[in-house]
Amino acid sequence: MLTFKNLDQTASYALLQEWASHPPSSHTLSAHQVHQFMSTSSLVNYHYAGALVNADIVSLLQIVAKEQEVVDKYKALLAGAPLNTSENRPVLHHQLRSTSESMYSAECTRLFSFAHTIRSSQKFTDVVQVGIGGSDLGPRLLVHTLSGLDVPYLKPHFLTSVDPDELNRLLPTLPPDTTLWIVASKSGSTLETQSNLSCIQPPPHQTIVLTTPNSPLDRPQDFLDIFYIDHSIGGRFSSTSIMGMTIVTLCFGQEVVEDILSGARQMDEDALCPDSTKNPSLMAALIGVWIRSFLSMPALGIIPYSTALAPLPAFIRQLDCESNGKQVNRDGDPIGYPTSPVIFGECGTNCQHSFFQKIHQGTDPIPIEFIGFRHAQTHKNPHQHMILNANLISQMTALALGQDHDNPNQRFVGSRPYSLLLANRMDAKTLGALISFYENKIMFQGFLWNLNSFDQEGVQLGKRITQDLLQHKSTYNSSLLQTWQDLLR
Amino acid sequence: MLTFKNLDQTASYALLQEWASHPPSSHTLSAHQVHQFMSTSSLVNYHYAGALVNADIVSLLQIVAKEQEVVDKYKALLAGAPLNTSENRPVLHHQLRSTSESMYSAECTRLFSFAHTIRSSQKFTDVVQVGIGGSDLGPRLLVHTLSGLDVPYLKPHFLTSVDPDELNRLLPTLPPDTTLWIVASKSGSTLETQSNLSCIQPPPHQTIVLTTPNSPLDRPQDFLDIFYIDHSIGGRFSSTSIMGMTIVTLCFGQEVVEDILSGARQMDEDALCPDSTKNPSLMAALIGVWIRSFLSMPALGIIPYSTALAPLPAFIRQLDCESNGKQVNRDGDPIGYPTSPVIFGECGTNCQHSFFQKIHQGTDPIPIEFIGFRHAQTHKNPHQHMILNANLISQMTALALGQDHDNPNQRFVGSRPYSLLLANRMDAKTLGALISFYENKIMFQGFLWNLNSFDQEGVQLGKRITQDLLQHKSTYNSSLLQTWQDLLR
Repeated sequence: MLTFKNLDQTASYALLQEWASHPPSSHTLSAHQVHQFMSTSSLVNYHYAGALVNADIVSLLQIVAKEQEVVDKYKALLAGAPLNTSENRPVLHHQLRSTSESMYSAECTRLFSFAHTIRSSQKFTDVVQVGIGGSDLGPRLLVHTLSGLDVPYLKPHFLTSVDPDELNRLLPTLPPDTTLWIVASKSGSTLETQSNLSCIQPPPHQTIVLTTPNSPLDRPQDFLDIFYIDHSIGGRFSSTSIMGMTIVTLCFGQEVVEDILSGARQMDEDALCPDSTKNPSLMAALIGVWIRSFLSMPALGIIPYSTALAPLPAFIRQLDCESNGKQVNRDGDPIGYPTSPVIFGECGTNCQHSFFQKIHQGTDPIPIEFIGFRHAQTHKNPHQHMILNANLISQMTALALGQDHDNPNQRFVGSRPYSLLLANRMDAKTLGALISFYENKIMFQGFLWNLNSFDQEGVQLGKRITQDLLQHKSTYNSSLLQTWQDLLR
Repeated sequence: MLTFKNLDQTASYALLQEWASHPPSSHTLSAHQVHQFMSTSSLVNYHYAGALVNADIVSLLQIVAKEQEVVDKYKALLAGAPLNTSENRPVLHHQLRSTSESMYSAECTRLFSFAHTIRSSQKFTDVVQVGIGGSDLGPRLLVHTLSGLDVPYLKPHFLTSVDPDELNRLLPTLPPDTTLWIVASKSGSTLETQSNLSCIQPPPHQTIVLTTPNSPLDRPQDFLDIFYIDHSIGGRFSSTSIMGMTIVTLCFGQEVVEDILSGARQMDEDALCPDSTKNPSLMAALIGVWIRSFLSMPALGIIPYSTALAPLPAFIRQLDCESNGKQVNRDGDPIGYPTSPVIFGECGTNCQHSFFQKIHQGTDPIPIEFIGFRHAQTHKNPHQHMILNANLISQMTALALGQDHDNPNQRFVGSRPYSLLLANRMDAKTLGALISFYENKIMFQGFLWNLNSFDQEGVQLGKRITQDLLQHKSTYNSSLLQTWQDLLR
């Protein structure tokens, strides 16, 4: 029997609060501490010596993890327990990369065969994924990162918002007869996707659909083909489903998909380890909770030193904010500690020439999650990658140690918190591992905070008011809505 | 004689603190209040009824603006006073769009003539701007936004980081003989730009340089042409200088440049008005200080309901964080109030399907700055723009009013702060106005906070450690640096 309680009901909460009132500094960060505070796995290592911790704090966090039964809850989730309590549904995205036979592996086989036919036909030059949110951010990350490893077989595009400027900018660039359209909508009724579809009216024999069975888009006779996603795969957790793998298969081939799934599977398995020093996603979850809920720092900068990961911060932002941006626990009771930080980010070294002034010398410490790689994606100009990593090392060092100076304007306070996620090379397998790392980190944080990380009721109110507005029903506050409409006309 | 004092030394500070301890809610936001709380100008209006203010608070903020002499300081800046105190320099970026004859208008004339020659020659198909920070973010915004209005004459590209994956991804897509290279580096010694340049070695007759006179890149014999920027134009304030206008002239022509400068000039003039209800950038500065320094909210989401402005949040982030992400005042004394929020953002409606769960139902209120337009850039599918704006209106309404519900998971607390910057259409003139709006907003906030917004000492320490590392000097903490180097090898 699993037990569920709020973070502030755990035995170590008060002790951690006590530590948070006088946290350790990192002014004297040593080589020894860098080796002491790392969590290792086969594909990624997580370094947290810069995260304002000491051995006592880490022990207390590990006790919290045990008391909150986070690995047991993960196992229950894998076994199909309905942990999405508000919708009374299981949470099945891990099954997308499990080796067991499933509906998904059948869908994948069908997808590989479809992609083979498309490629062999040589009928298509371009592919557009029409979708928003989970049907956009993950797939966009996958395509951008993989494009650094190989030239896509079809030229990939994305169409997301209802903004006509996005559509009108994209359309003239597409060859009408050789463009394949992927319409991706889990519900089959997404306003933006529906509206774009009715503007474009893509030819049926050039259109495939990704949706749930029996959705309004589940009309096989109207399209070239349909691939299905299960209701129990959340949109933000659907990168490794057909929502992401369709465009990846079409552009980069079956083997790349298999590498991504294998990397994600390996990280999913590593996430089962109860020892957080051998479970990077669990350790990252604990450090995140330390910084957010005990040190009360409100934001988190995601800084990959790899331009291949430029779309990663936006992907993680959805994953984190929709999962844990909540103020009631899984039972609907208000919680008394902050959750889900504001996620922002930019690649290094660009960030250094943009907002790192504030990170080094701003009034408040802003924690940074660096992501680094031992090797570049590409093999040309390796000297540049050495310079890139020298910059990463320098930033980590400057943030921790700071610098005293007679001129206060040239003083750096130091002890600014950061961690480093380190991997070998940004290839397809590592990409799968990274996606799993963040999915599982955020799942573990939901368990620690006692949230239901798998619904998103916070998006409903705006949707309902929009529907009422468009249908000229004004049930909410008619004169206010009318005023805005007049001002925006 | 101007007087300089910290925000907490102003007469109204304690009264505003008192209001901040029980701020007005926006649960009963009315049409009347929407009209009451707006600041108007010829090109943009700023609506702040949703920003948790009342008439008393706005009056107090206006008194602070007067006491801090923000408009007088702006006038002194325009007159050439050395307000960049740490570097003892004037701050000249407003002169870029003034009508008076200047070094810049001569440079513009030369640029227009150069661009005319390039276009007439029909020798080039592509143009790459090589630069980072201020030589990248503003120009990138300009090119992205303008591409929604017109097809660029040359295909534009950007190369920024020292990451070899960025370079190796771009190079194969460029036709070697018809690509024009713009090397943009104010100092002429930017590590990333220098390193990329030595990898690419672009042919001299295909390369132009943007730099300051006498910089290491000021070698006219080595390039097709050189255009100059003054030392007293900060990188982040250089969008309307040759740093931005060169690629804009080449891709979109002289008239577009003139429209941008005219829009910026008009907003610069509006910023002289001491009445903040007719000075949107001043009013936005005051509201920003209310939310950041009195309500202590640490972040700001920039949400344009226009995909043409997708690069805007990153541009504003640099502008804000490098200018005001500081913890000492202009005299080097520590300040006792928070400055510069964490800036993040994404376009609507995408944000609604990504992180708005947290904005509506997260544990902490996150202020949002919406940007809306009465008309789309393009004229096709106008129905879609109506749906887009219905979404914007619904989000603003939901954030303010919230929703009660028996099920706590479907409750929306409301009173979540936001403002709206509203303009007619995202054209070149409005783009100039937007850039000026944010530059001046941030300048006014620097005056209110008593900062020097025009230096960036916080970027120096990391740079120095990198140089030491690359030159194998280890003056800082050798064993720590060595450990990181080993781990990243």
